Amino acid sequence: MVFTNDIHLPKQGSDFDFFGYLAERQTRVEAALDGALPVIYPEKIYEAMRYSLLAGGKRLRPILCIATCELLGGTLEMAMPTACSLEMIHTMSLIHDDLPAMDNDDFRRGKLTNHKVFGEDIAILAGDGLLAYAFEFIVTQTKSVPADRLLQVIARLGRAVGASGLVGGQVMDLDAEGQPNISLDTLNFIHTHKTGALLEACVVCGGMLAGATAKEVQHLSRYAQNIGLAFQIIDDILDITATRDILGKTAGKDLQAQKATYPSIWGLEESQRHAQQLVINAKAELAIFGEQAHPLIAIADYITSRRH
Amino acid sequence: MVFTNDIHLPKQGSDFDFFGYLAERQTRVEAALDGALPVIYPEKIYEAMRYSLLAGGKRLRPILCIATCELLGGTLEMAMPTACSLEMIHTMSLIHDDLPAMDNDDFRRGKLTNHKVFGEDIAILAGDGLLAYAFEFIVTQTKSVPADRLLQVIARLGRAVGASGLVGGQVMDLDAEGQPNISLDTLNFIHTHKTGALLEACVVCGGMLAGATAKEVQHLSRYAQNIGLAFQIIDDILDITATRDILGKTAGKDLQAQKATYPSIWGLEESQRHAQQLVINAKAELAIFGEQAHPLIAIADYITSRRH
Repeated sequence: MVFTNDIHLPKQGSDFDFFGYLAERQTRVEAALDGALPVIYPEKIYEAMRYSLLAGGKRLRPILCIATCELLGGTLEMAMPTACSLEMIHTMSLIHDDLPAMDNDDFRRGKLTNHKVFGEDIAILAGDGLLAYAFEFIVTQTKSVPADRLLQVIARLGRAVGASGLVGGQVMDLDAEGQPNISLDTLNFIHTHKTGALLEACVVCGGMLAGATAKEVQHLSRYAQNIGLAFQIIDDILDITATRDILGKTAGKDLQAQKATYPSIWGLEESQRHAQQLVINAKAELAIFGEQAHPLIAIADYITSRRH
Repeated sequence: MVFTNDIHLPKQGSDFDFFGYLAERQTRVEAALDGALPVIYPEKIYEAMRYSLLAGGKRLRPILCIATCELLGGTLEMAMPTACSLEMIHTMSLIHDDLPAMDNDDFRRGKLTNHKVFGEDIAILAGDGLLAYAFEFIVTQTKSVPADRLLQVIARLGRAVGASGLVGGQVMDLDAEGQPNISLDTLNFIHTHKTGALLEACVVCGGMLAGATAKEVQHLSRYAQNIGLAFQIIDDILDITATRDILGKTAGKDLQAQKATYPSIWGLEESQRHAQQLVINAKAELAIFGEQAHPLIAIADYITSRRH
């Protein structure tokens, strides 16, 4: 999936070319991911890992990591290994989520899911391999970042993926299936953990690599928490409104699965309003960084205005 | 399972109380593991992680890590977080290996496997959670070790678990099922990766934490490679000779699964001879460390003389 400008993006104050920026970053991330994982013996597992890692997507997580590192005075080169690792971790979570024992999805981004191509056993191992490699990759590939900052990044990533983050969110999400009447608190827990924790880690780790202060990290965290939740609300809305062709997965799946969503609690209009407010809050957290924050501001706007 | 002295351990030159040593270390590791993973919300995933992490076992991996750290002049305290992480990773690999899509085992160490108790979805996530937490735990819990050494340890662990290690070995192991005539090279690849890589990481990381030189790491690696392979050969032998009651899993499972093993290639007697030679080689690698190496020497002897 390539960035297109078929969305209604609010005008930026500057002449910043947001779509040009995204496309250029996406290209660099794709190249880095492609180079990160050569196929060696035993080929099958590397091919399975590459199949899902290089299956496209917006690469929003790596781009957030790089943009935040640059905002804090770091470079793209400092952030790229961590950016790639974040995408490996995200990919691992998608492969495992799609398994028959979990969400049982046959398609992802219009392609067969990993286990449909390589079998369940290899899909489980491909996920494990990507997760382990993500940590190794950060350490062996990052240049010009002090060791103590890298350790902070690794601890933060571990927290974002484990039972205190993504895994914990997925557990509650599985629990909530067939229970359309779960509380707003539970719904928030699911999403701040299942998708929010890793998005927050992207932004926070980008800042950490560049040596962000504790106060800066706090603002970055809140920016990310707000866009993470907005992202999920929009996902829920799109699940209802989008067609299968645009989304590349079975639309209305949440409804079929009798899952509680933000629109099922608030309705479509109120959900849209909440998402917009979260984006306003997210952008307010960036005020301390001034004009330099325009990529992160544009990403926040992009999230609520996207159509797929 | 508690260490007992119902094995024929060669007499040590010193008056070193090996079984006392193992029991004391095992107790400390159990306590550290128990404290490493408190149950918080959502409880189910922490309970699933703890179920397998605290299911007993010899704790050979953590003990190897601690013993090597101490041999190189480090302390038990420096090594304990990494030692616990190694056991978390080992546990993750057992949980995922036991899944229906993999080896499909109902019992492990005489207890129901994780997915039989918690379901396949939770078992997959418990493994993911343990793997992610292992990396976080090392960083947040290790004291008095320079940051660059910790980074070395993390890179080494990632390599040991991923497609270049444990995962790669498991892929080839799954491939080899129903093929009793695979080559010795393939059998060696499976075991040096599936079990050997992590055992080697235990020893090497223990050394790294204490600041081992490149030459020392090389000797430690070869010691570990030798005991790793000896360990597997003995496992293959025990799979044939032990009864279900002693082993706590279905004995003769390899034969039933039509899997190539060292005894199927070499015969029982020749396999025993190979294992003994590997232990001699392993101990020779420890010569540069002198008398101080007696715990690692005793562990090498223990491996070939164990009866379960």
